[in-house]
Amino acid sequence: MDPAELKAIVRTIPDFPKPGILFRDITTLIAHGRGFAATIDRLVDRALMADASAVAGIEARGFIFGAAVAARLGIGFIPLRKPGKLPMPTIGVDYQLEYGEARLELDPGAVEDGEKVLLMDDLLATGGTALAAVDLLRQAGARVHHALFVIDLHELKGGHLLREEGLDVQAIMQFDGE
Amino acid sequence: MDPAELKAIVRTIPDFPKPGILFRDITTLIAHGRGFAATIDRLVDRALMADASAVAGIEARGFIFGAAVAARLGIGFIPLRKPGKLPMPTIGVDYQLEYGEARLELDPGAVEDGEKVLLMDDLLATGGTALAAVDLLRQAGARVHHALFVIDLHELKGGHLLREEGLDVQAIMQFDGE
Repeated sequence: MDPAELKAIVRTIPDFPKPGILFRDITTLIAHGRGFAATIDRLVDRALMADASAVAGIEARGFIFGAAVAARLGIGFIPLRKPGKLPMPTIGVDYQLEYGEARLELDPGAVEDGEKVLLMDDLLATGGTALAAVDLLRQAGARVHHALFVIDLHELKGGHLLREEGLDVQAIMQFDGE
Repeated sequence: MDPAELKAIVRTIPDFPKPGILFRDITTLIAHGRGFAATIDRLVDRALMADASAVAGIEARGFIFGAAVAARLGIGFIPLRKPGKLPMPTIGVDYQLEYGEARLELDPGAVEDGEKVLLMDDLLATGGTALAAVDLLRQAGARVHHALFVIDLHELKGGHLLREEGLDVQAIMQFDGE
């Protein structure tokens, strides 16, 4: 399946979470057996270029794509979790969302000092969450040079923000506000 | 890697979340590239027996294993989510946990009427969450005959509970209170 076919499987929900926003919903993509497998194939192709020894995925939708890619590549998966989920001492980063504050936590023992980690999530919007994730991984000693997404809402310029931090940013589909 | 080697990679954290409990932590297993890939291989072998057209995974750790298995099999992945995460009208089920109430939600449009769905999660303890998940999937019209876990804490008898509901229950490793 080519990218246009995959894009057509993504559902658009108007006015969510607020009026005027077109929410791009990956639930329909992952429920589609061939579409989901083709999505992972395309992500694996891009992930290979990162030459990483682990994939870090952002809770919760980033787990769906990131873990599948890590397992295919035979490399580790590092979950970046919401507060209070990990049973060991963690390091964390607080960051701003449009509607308030959020926090990501990490088991610092999951990262080898100096290892190359590929950051993955389902969707790149303003890039605030991804940038916080990169900061957290770097605090733990990772080298993070690549970020990979299923969808880039490129009008929101998250790619620009991440590239300013020295990251190579890839996505397998882009959406405008159309 | 054989099951004993995989078990040795799972970290045990004593007295979490309360004194006397040995918490089995899969963070170390998924961070181990070969161990994680071998875990997915073993889960795929078991999943094939379910002959399902979709895998349903329970948020959030169930996403890590369930989505990787679904992508490998080329079948759909259905996320069973915590409340308020899905952007469409959902159906839900409330259930009891040891420390209070919890709820799982599902997009009913993600399930075809009568389709065979394999339930997956990382860990089977008392089985309360898994049983709620089975109820929810059946409400949406799925046939659920198989449940698959990475770890079965078999002293807690979750497997017994699920088998009473007519499910075939599989896990690739078992732990006692040792």
